[in-house]
This record gives sequence, C-alpha cells and structure tokens, in this order.
Amino acid sequence: MALRVGVVGGGQLARMMIAPAVELGVEIRVLAEAEGMSASLAATSVGDYRDADTVLAFARDVDVVTFDHEHVPQPVLHALVDAGVAVRPGPDALHYAQDKLAMRARLDELGMPQPDWASVSDEDSLQAFLDDHGGRAVVKTPRGGYDGKGVRVVSRASDAADWLSAGAPLLVEELVEFTRELAQQVARRPSGQVVAFPVVETVQRDGVCAEVIAPAPHAGDRLTEAAARVGTEIAEGLGVTGMLAVELFETTDERILVNELAMRPHNSGHWTQDGAATSQFEQHLRAVLDLPLGDPASRAAWSVMVNILGGPASDSLDARFAAAMADHPDAKIHTYGKTPRPGRKVGHVNAVGDDLDDVAYVARSAAARFLD
Amino acid sequence: MALRVGVVGGGQLARMMIAPAVELGVEIRVLAEAEGMSASLAATSVGDYRDADTVLAFARDVDVVTFDHEHVPQPVLHALVDAGVAVRPGPDALHYAQDKLAMRARLDELGMPQPDWASVSDEDSLQAFLDDHGGRAVVKTPRGGYDGKGVRVVSRASDAADWLSAGAPLLVEELVEFTRELAQQVARRPSGQVVAFPVVETVQRDGVCAEVIAPAPHAGDRLTEAAARVGTEIAEGLGVTGMLAVELFETTDERILVNELAMRPHNSGHWTQDGAATSQFEQHLRAVLDLPLGDPASRAAWSVMVNILGGPASDSLDARFAAAMADHPDAKIHTYGKTPRPGRKVGHVNAVGDDLDDVAYVARSAAARFLD
Repeated sequence: MALRVGVVGGGQLARMMIAPAVELGVEIRVLAEAEGMSASLAATSVGDYRDADTVLAFARDVDVVTFDHEHVPQPVLHALVDAGVAVRPGPDALHYAQDKLAMRARLDELGMPQPDWASVSDEDSLQAFLDDHGGRAVVKTPRGGYDGKGVRVVSRASDAADWLSAGAPLLVEELVEFTRELAQQVARRPSGQVVAFPVVETVQRDGVCAEVIAPAPHAGDRLTEAAARVGTEIAEGLGVTGMLAVELFETTDERILVNELAMRPHNSGHWTQDGAATSQFEQHLRAVLDLPLGDPASRAAWSVMVNILGGPASDSLDARFAAAMADHPDAKIHTYGKTPRPGRKVGHVNAVGDDLDDVAYVARSAAARFLD
Repeated sequence: MALRVGVVGGGQLARMMIAPAVELGVEIRVLAEAEGMSASLAATSVGDYRDADTVLAFARDVDVVTFDHEHVPQPVLHALVDAGVAVRPGPDALHYAQDKLAMRARLDELGMPQPDWASVSDEDSLQAFLDDHGGRAVVKTPRGGYDGKGVRVVSRASDAADWLSAGAPLLVEELVEFTRELAQQVARRPSGQVVAFPVVETVQRDGVCAEVIAPAPHAGDRLTEAAARVGTEIAEGLGVTGMLAVELFETTDERILVNELAMRPHNSGHWTQDGAATSQFEQHLRAVLDLPLGDPASRAAWSVMVNILGGPASDSLDARFAAAMADHPDAKIHTYGKTPRPGRKVGHVNAVGDDLDDVAYVARSAAARFLD
C-alpha cells in the first residue's frame, strides 16, 4: 500500500515532487487552483484551498497534507487538524510564514540574527524608524508578498501612505548593507530529525531569484556552520516539518541576518535535483511522511541553477528547448508545463561539475537559449 | 503543447520514464496489460498489446509510440506504421529483438563479434554442433525468452528434445568461456545521432541481473572503445531508435562477444538514474522524440546498482524501506509499486561515489535490508 501525500496547490513545486514520489513509491495527489496547472500530471482535483470543506474532502484520501505555497488560511488548517489530518508543516509553524510581523517577533525570541525591525501603524512611527536608521528602510506588508511584491524601499513615511491607509500594521526593516544573499535549507521530520543542505548563494534580479550557486562560493566553515545552525534552530523553534528555506543577507561586516522564510521546497533548492544526493523535493516527501531523511551532500564540487523566465506566449518553447539541449547535452533542463509570459518562471536549468566557471557557463548559456 | 509519448507495456521500465518525462515536460501515456501495474501513476489505459485495434486507438492521441518490452507482434507494429504512427524502435529493428536467430544472422552480416551459433531443427544437427564445440552448448528458443527463461545448457541433443518437438528451429550457441558479463548501452535518434554510455559489468544470479558496476572495473580504453563501437554499429546496422542494450561476454582471451540485445531501457542501465548526467530513461524519451541526446557521462567515479528481489508477499515493504533509508541516507532506493513475491524484481538501489568498495557496500547493504 503506497503512502499518499496530498499537496495543496498545483504549481511547479507540487509538480517537482512527482518525480521523486514515483521513485519512492509514494502516491501524490494535488488540490489545484485550476485545470491544467503545472502539477496536473499527478492525480489532481480542482478546488478552492480557502474553503475548509473542499480541503477536508481532499484530505480524506491521503496520509498527510502538505503544500505548494503558504497561503492556506489558518481556519482551514485548523479544521484539518481538528479532523485528525496530519498537516505538515502545521498551522502553528505556517503562521510564521504567513505573517512577517509574527515571524520577526518569534525570531527575536529565539535569538536569531535579523535586521532591526518594527511594527508600524502610522506615518509617525514609520518616520521615527526612518530617522533612527539613516533615512531609508524597507517596508513590507506582513501578509501575501512574494517575488518582490509587497516590499518597498522608502525614504519618507509618506511613501507608504497607501499601505498604511489600509489600516493594518506594516513591517519596517532596516535597509541591510549586504554583500550578497544566501539561502539555507533544512528538512525536519515530525519525530525531530533535522538535516541541513549546504548554504547557497542566491542572485536576485528585480526581486526574483535569477540564479543559485551551490555551495556559496568562498563560504568557509564558520559561515557554513552558522547558516546551518540558524536554519536548524528556526526549524526547531518554529516547529517546521518538511522543507524550510531561510533567506539570508551576508553583511559587509560578515554577519548573516535572516531575511525571509519559506516552509516548503524553494527556488533556492532547485539545484539539489541534480547536484545533491537527495533533492529538496524527495527530502520534503520523506520529511512530511516522517521517513528517515536522505543525505543532503553535494554530488559535485559545484552546482549552478539558472531560472528560465518566460518570453512572449507566442514563442515555441519546444524549439528553444531542443536548441538548448543540442548546445548543452550536459545541462539538466526542467520545465514546468506553463504557458510562457514575460517574467514568468517556466523552468530552470541545472549544471553540475568540478569547475565553477564551466558549470555557470553551461547553466547560463542553456537558459539563455530560452530568452529573446 | 507538451510532446506525448505512448508506452506500450505498464511495467517498471515505463514507470521509470515518468520522472524524466515530468522534468522534460513530456506527457507519458501507458497502455498497460492490467489495472494497478507498475506504471499506473501515468495516464494509463488497459488493453491487449496483441490487438491491433487496441494499440491503434491508444496511438491516436500520442506523438510517438515506444515500448516497455519487445513483445508487440509484428502485424500490430506494421498496422501502426501503415496508419502513419511514429513507432520507435520500428518493426524492422524490433524483429531482431524478437527473433534471436534473425539477430544472430544479421550480426554476422554486420561483422559483429559473437559466439559460434547455428539454427537447429533436429537432434542430428544439434548433436553435430555439440560434437564440434566440446560436447556442451547453449540452446535458446528464438522467441519469448527473458531472465534466463528459454535458455538451457545441453550436453546431449536429447536434452532439447521437448523444445525440438515443437517444430520450430532453435538457436544453439557455443558455451562461451567468459571471465565476466558486460553491457553496453547506446541511444540513437531517428535522425542518426548516437551516444554511448560507459560499458558496465553485470553480475547475474540464477539467470537474473543481480548487480551492475559502472563503469566496468579495470576496463581500459581498448575495451571501452570496442564495446562502444559494437553498440553503435549494432544500433546503426539494425536501425534501432531509442535505447539499445547489448549484453556482452568478456572472454578469457580478452575478446567481447555479443550475448543478447534489448531495444528499450534495460536493467543494466538503472545506475544511470543517479550515476550519469543523463539517465537511460531520459535518454530513451529524448531519442524516441528525436530530441538532442543528453550527456551519457558518469557523474562520479563509481556507481553500483543492486536489484531488490522481493520476498514473501506478507512482508511489509514500507518498514523495510524505512530501515534501509535510516541505515543508508546516501543510498537511492527506487521502488516499482509491485507486490513482492519470491524472486520478483520490486525495486533497486543505486549508490554513487569515489570509492568502489564503499559504493558497493552501500548499495548491497541497503538492498539487503529488503531481504529475509
């Protein structure tokens, strides 16, 4: 009897759980937002994840419910728990992924390194924060942001007047002087086992992850261990089960500060599909099923992941795919089955090998074949 | 619009095409022999592959038809071709996988190294072959054998009397004095591109593949190149499209001789899922779709694959799986979703790394966790 994992959300993260599920003998069922989504290769039902009855009905036929995203409302999550469904990560952990103010407060309690921050409900308190932090800061809506949305750099309190007028408190954070961005992934089982993947460098463009280098170049033991420790302590402190991604700033004074959290497989870990002994998608399945976790070690000295951001919908993805395959037989091209649109993530390329320059060249060149 | 591959046969080879299909954005449809087969995670219809109408109906909705096995009858294959279906490999190539006498004759024409052989229809001609070859030989039924079935070592013509009485000619081959068995896999596209995987050593027990070591230990350039050349020339000479496996004997006098052919992904190539830049299943999909082939190079110095041969059906595969995972976080365990029975292949374990002893230990120990 195969174990059955129900994934709420039909995007590419759910889709990329399908391949390891087949090999593990795990059955994947997906509750998708619409027909024809990225994960629709798996057994898929379509329904509204904000509706408790819909999600409860979906959960009835699976052994554990997990997620492609963190947007399932708390009342729905609690209805699942109350009905005896194994929900991983659970509502208490997901609360911190859904509410950035709650996350900041909890990470302070845990003693995690993070930027100065405050909850602000009016222009006066925002201006006070700005005055204390060199006149510039980052304002975030506590809920619903992703890929740069719900994030704004401000230098005057009035820059956030529209958001403040909505009536809910905002999160304001110091503008960190960072040399680069890193990401630390860990997996945690309900029974407590935690394993940490190597810390990686992430390169963002226009607020969207463009490229990941694994492991982070020039990351010495001190940085690697510090990042793994932060990831592990957050997973344990917040009670996360499944994959956790901790986005980090590395500062000019060589500290690491927690930027964002994601409680699911994450773009910063796509390199693991071809570059690690265990992919983040396999690891997520093992973790939410409370199976022993796999080895997170790199398979090669270097892995580079480059996102494919779709061009106009009129382009033939198939022809570009074949051209990329022909030029780069060593590139691993992953597609999401999505209609290309400007800026939309429609796939990614992984390359692995011994020489970072070569590996980066292969991944970037193959991905560039998909662009205009 | 995703490319659609139809696979005739619902066994584990079809199943293992699912994972790379998801990543390539290729849609897999399976014509299975029965409900609940290994590949039933893919979109599956159930029907008899010996019935032309059934297979034609299945082929209508796909871009190319390929196979999990070589048993589709020639009239059915020709009906597909006549209807304009892309059949890969095609009937003319599959003929040589279906009829071992035809294969031997054709390989002679191509000048391929192979054991002495003859077609025998009566005890006199079989006895004459035995007398010429030291009194022992291997008799094979030309059709329908696999995993040691339809193969018999004889020392008297009367040992094959039952098979001869069926009226069809048999294949008799010299009993090769070999030091070990090897396998050479190549992939070939309809447009002609051929790539060769590294030659591997296969270890058989009771006529069934038990273990594969990649690359074959102590294989120097001469052997590696000779095996790749034999594989390439057979693929080209027989017009194979998709994956071809050539099982080889390495003789005591350091020659290689062709033993058997398989025109599909093959047990000897399961190591490529975790040990090669491109798995044989991804390569088969690329080849039958006439897409540029992937890099067949090994990802690590050594890969070892050990088959999991199922124990009694009453055993809990899940508990054994968890135990193997806990002991060997670096082992890649692949399951086929089959009910265990004695001797049945229900999965395999791959291990990869720099030290052959370590790699073999991990693969064998993890697989042993599934045995009594």
